[in-house]
Amino acid sequence: MRLQELGEWELLQRLSAFAPAGQWDDDAALLTEQSGKTLVVNTDLLVEGVHFSETTVPPQELGWRAAAANLSDLAAMGCSSVVGLTVGLVAPGETSWSWVEGVYQGLSEALGHFGGCLLGGDCSSGAQRLLAITALGHVGDGPIRRGDGRPGDWLVCSGPHGLSRLGLALLLGEVNPQERELLPPALQTEAMRAHQRPQPRFDVVRQLSATRPDHAAWRVAGTDSSDGLQLAIANIARTSGCAATIERQALPMAPDFTRLASAERWCLSGGEDFELVLALEPSWAEALCRAMPDCTRLGWLVEGAAGTLSWAGSGTTLDSDEAGYCHFQSKSRPEGRPDDC
Amino acid sequence: MRLQELGEWELLQRLSAFAPAGQWDDDAALLTEQSGKTLVVNTDLLVEGVHFSETTVPPQELGWRAAAANLSDLAAMGCSSVVGLTVGLVAPGETSWSWVEGVYQGLSEALGHFGGCLLGGDCSSGAQRLLAITALGHVGDGPIRRGDGRPGDWLVCSGPHGLSRLGLALLLGEVNPQERELLPPALQTEAMRAHQRPQPRFDVVRQLSATRPDHAAWRVAGTDSSDGLQLAIANIARTSGCAATIERQALPMAPDFTRLASAERWCLSGGEDFELVLALEPSWAEALCRAMPDCTRLGWLVEGAAGTLSWAGSGTTLDSDEAGYCHFQSKSRPEGRPDDC
Repeated sequence: MRLQELGEWELLQRLSAFAPAGQWDDDAALLTEQSGKTLVVNTDLLVEGVHFSETTVPPQELGWRAAAANLSDLAAMGCSSVVGLTVGLVAPGETSWSWVEGVYQGLSEALGHFGGCLLGGDCSSGAQRLLAITALGHVGDGPIRRGDGRPGDWLVCSGPHGLSRLGLALLLGEVNPQERELLPPALQTEAMRAHQRPQPRFDVVRQLSATRPDHAAWRVAGTDSSDGLQLAIANIARTSGCAATIERQALPMAPDFTRLASAERWCLSGGEDFELVLALEPSWAEALCRAMPDCTRLGWLVEGAAGTLSWAGSGTTLDSDEAGYCHFQSKSRPEGRPDDC
Repeated sequence: MRLQELGEWELLQRLSAFAPAGQWDDDAALLTEQSGKTLVVNTDLLVEGVHFSETTVPPQELGWRAAAANLSDLAAMGCSSVVGLTVGLVAPGETSWSWVEGVYQGLSEALGHFGGCLLGGDCSSGAQRLLAITALGHVGDGPIRRGDGRPGDWLVCSGPHGLSRLGLALLLGEVNPQERELLPPALQTEAMRAHQRPQPRFDVVRQLSATRPDHAAWRVAGTDSSDGLQLAIANIARTSGCAATIERQALPMAPDFTRLASAERWCLSGGEDFELVLALEPSWAEALCRAMPDCTRLGWLVEGAAGTLSWAGSGTTLDSDEAGYCHFQSKSRPEGRPDDC
């Protein structure tokens, strides 16, 4: 059996058997320190030709994105502070120093912005450029875990979705001139920026603490939407043993984004938006959305087959085929789309 | 300027400028927890064709070695307990599941032996098989840092050196029949085992605590010999601002190993022995060597040009050209030799 026959999900399923039960359920690992503080550890790979290409991401943006993608996993675990990163760099000998310098400048810039420092790392020659980043951070008031949702929780996400995918399409020249004309220049700039300079949502984590109702104990389910909004919801629902109902008209899209033929598809499964998707007690969800205008109530968790998503009203099940990219398989995918397991 | 012109050491020098001053002086990063405990974080890359080949290391041994190489860096920082590892796996889609399974079995076996668990990770398709491992552990009685040596300290190392290099040569069929005949079969087996199943020396760390003289505060300089014994000594000396004097007759070689023409060269710069090299106050060094029969006093740190090594008696300086492998440059190197920056 080869990995391309197995596919990424089955591979991860098999690999998780080598870890303690439940250890791989979340975006990252939680470690409780002696003082009671919780450390989060997350490792991500960024491989040239799979997760990025020089065409769409200049080195400094790549460094930023590599850091931001990792830090987004820390935010998705409830981290309020960043300790730092270790970076494994692989590159062929003919790689220019200026490319490497640009990548590390981008990494440093992101760390300067979100906190933490470059802790250490390793480097090696190799056939393909690649970054292997491990991020460490500390949980704030409480952890965010995929499996902590309950039926009745509201599903909330930060930010609009699909913008990063549009940004990638624009950078790759994949948007045809007629469609491009429909999009205001400001939206195009925002989309390319969303692709090249994603922002881990530590501000949402802070607002979760600020808006927690007096009566509520800390219980927040969540993940980030790096692999797409739909997959994020499905992962929360599945790990929480719930189904989810989504309000189609609530899908979080930027105003003129809906002019695109692929708007809904990119919103649901474009990926790389690095926003937070949460399941919360309704009064807390409401308070969060009031405090953060870019947070949207998408729907709610319900009792039902774990991980099943359906549209509110019609009850139609969302097709899961388009939901996420599967590594190792031949299914085509635009270069530069990350995955995150 | 390309990386192959720059070379690994210059590259690391330049990259360390992106980290806080002194952060990259050691084998791994030290993080002080709120409770006062010290967490060590280490990231290592193992790239096929650079650090390993399928010829010399079957998957289970590769998994063991990958874990052991990382854990050796934890031991070299003074860790007495292992928290665990995150593993980034890159492999082409045509890679067999049984190879991957073997690698993770080996990793698990090493963790079962030395402590800790598989914390998490990431996987991706890519052109070349590669493992990016981050190991976490806790410092015991005190940290071991490269720069903590002082003139007058004895240099001590654990284990014989050069065995792993011999093991690699045997596995690659590089030892000619005449020379092979000089080597007892038990030594050959031991050498291949040293290459495939290195043992991080947590036992030495424990004995450091047990043998610490009452009058001595914790001060231990050290590193592991993954990149070769000579380079390990040079790194301690350089970071400590000292020179080092080595007793040629004290070089730690297995009895019949000295029959090899390349014995001394492999002992000094064969690499991958994953032993500890330490600089200690003489009475402590003496107590350690008494308690651990496989520990050897190699020489001592002296005042002088930082990082310079010379032979006791003659005063001849050791040639540093052969001391370590330099990534990205075209200098030839046998496949399967690791480096560690």
